[in-house]
Amino acid sequence: MRSRFQQGLDELKGKLLAMGGMVENAMEQALRAYTGRDLQLCQKVLEGEADINLAERQIDELAFDLLAMQQPMAVDLRFILAVIKINADLERVGDQAVNVAQRVMDMATIPPADLPADIPYMAKIASQMVRRALQAFVTADAVLAQQVLESDDTADRLNREIMLAMLAAMKDSPEHIRQALDTIIIARNLERIADHATNIAEDVIFWTRGADVRHHLGPTAARS
Amino acid sequence: MRSRFQQGLDELKGKLLAMGGMVENAMEQALRAYTGRDLQLCQKVLEGEADINLAERQIDELAFDLLAMQQPMAVDLRFILAVIKINADLERVGDQAVNVAQRVMDMATIPPADLPADIPYMAKIASQMVRRALQAFVTADAVLAQQVLESDDTADRLNREIMLAMLAAMKDSPEHIRQALDTIIIARNLERIADHATNIAEDVIFWTRGADVRHHLGPTAARS
Repeated sequence: MRSRFQQGLDELKGKLLAMGGMVENAMEQALRAYTGRDLQLCQKVLEGEADINLAERQIDELAFDLLAMQQPMAVDLRFILAVIKINADLERVGDQAVNVAQRVMDMATIPPADLPADIPYMAKIASQMVRRALQAFVTADAVLAQQVLESDDTADRLNREIMLAMLAAMKDSPEHIRQALDTIIIARNLERIADHATNIAEDVIFWTRGADVRHHLGPTAARS
Repeated sequence: MRSRFQQGLDELKGKLLAMGGMVENAMEQALRAYTGRDLQLCQKVLEGEADINLAERQIDELAFDLLAMQQPMAVDLRFILAVIKINADLERVGDQAVNVAQRVMDMATIPPADLPADIPYMAKIASQMVRRALQAFVTADAVLAQQVLESDDTADRLNREIMLAMLAAMKDSPEHIRQALDTIIIARNLERIADHATNIAEDVIFWTRGADVRHHLGPTAARS
């Protein structure tokens, strides 16, 4: 039978994964809002921010209660600290989804432009990084976490490519300057999301480094 | 006489303040690099990143050791958690200073332009927010922390104003598009710094909320 403390750790992990789901949902909505210039979806992303912020606070409070409840073993301590940091990063991924939605709202007010920027592909890379970083956390998989770190170079490269392409588009078609600028900012937002995924992967590596983390791999890991 | 644990808390606070000093220094160098288009200063900011990252890890490890050392009282626990979060935000302020320096390096490679963007003023606001947030932390001053939160609106407004002014400049003078874009990105970096200061202020409020924090106000606070 698992102790109350162990149950608390399981609950903490479950809440963090639920938070991850909310954030992934926000990213996915923001991308669909972009591709469809869908103001209703933008609104949903904006409205969802309060729920994500609430979830963040609840996770922090639970982590705090667990630390106060008893003196955790080193491995549990590292786990709880990893949750606290991952939680903060997930909340900021949510903020970036909001930023994307706000840029889409701006783009919807001005004449459309067909610009050579593959935002959906970049969004896919960034989403995948977040999902894999969380997966690495759930399975305590430092190798998968390391792969996330390597994907960050791809995100950086795509961001640079989009910026250069948009700079060229601005020079060629001054009437599209604002659309191109919004596109550059969205690419930067996605690059920030990739950075947060990188931070999460680093936290997973910190947590698993030198620690026997197997006892955290309960039923939640098996289901994933 | 203060216990070994209390001495550890003092050391943790001291290290965090030293980290704050490093980050403020990076911001100040990045601004001077901007105003003087000074590539040597840009290089200094880039080189300083490794030291800031090292300091972040050392603070995390010390916080971890303190949590592992004994079961902290609630107020000490909140303090240590606040340090962990503030530490992460300070490191990201350092990242933003690096981003500014990288934009300045780009600006130095292209013909200069006299653009109507008061970056030094915005940098002053952002630096002030970081300094005040750390000051609020040192003195456990929730009122000062609240003031930092309010300054965030100013930073957001300046960012929007600079973006609109640069958009207009891009349309009027297509030859300055790249300088204007670099300026927009620098303004966004400064706005991110203001966001991090806001996060720090929120952590101070979390720490002081409902907690008697007076016993943390040792000699360090009196000196500041």
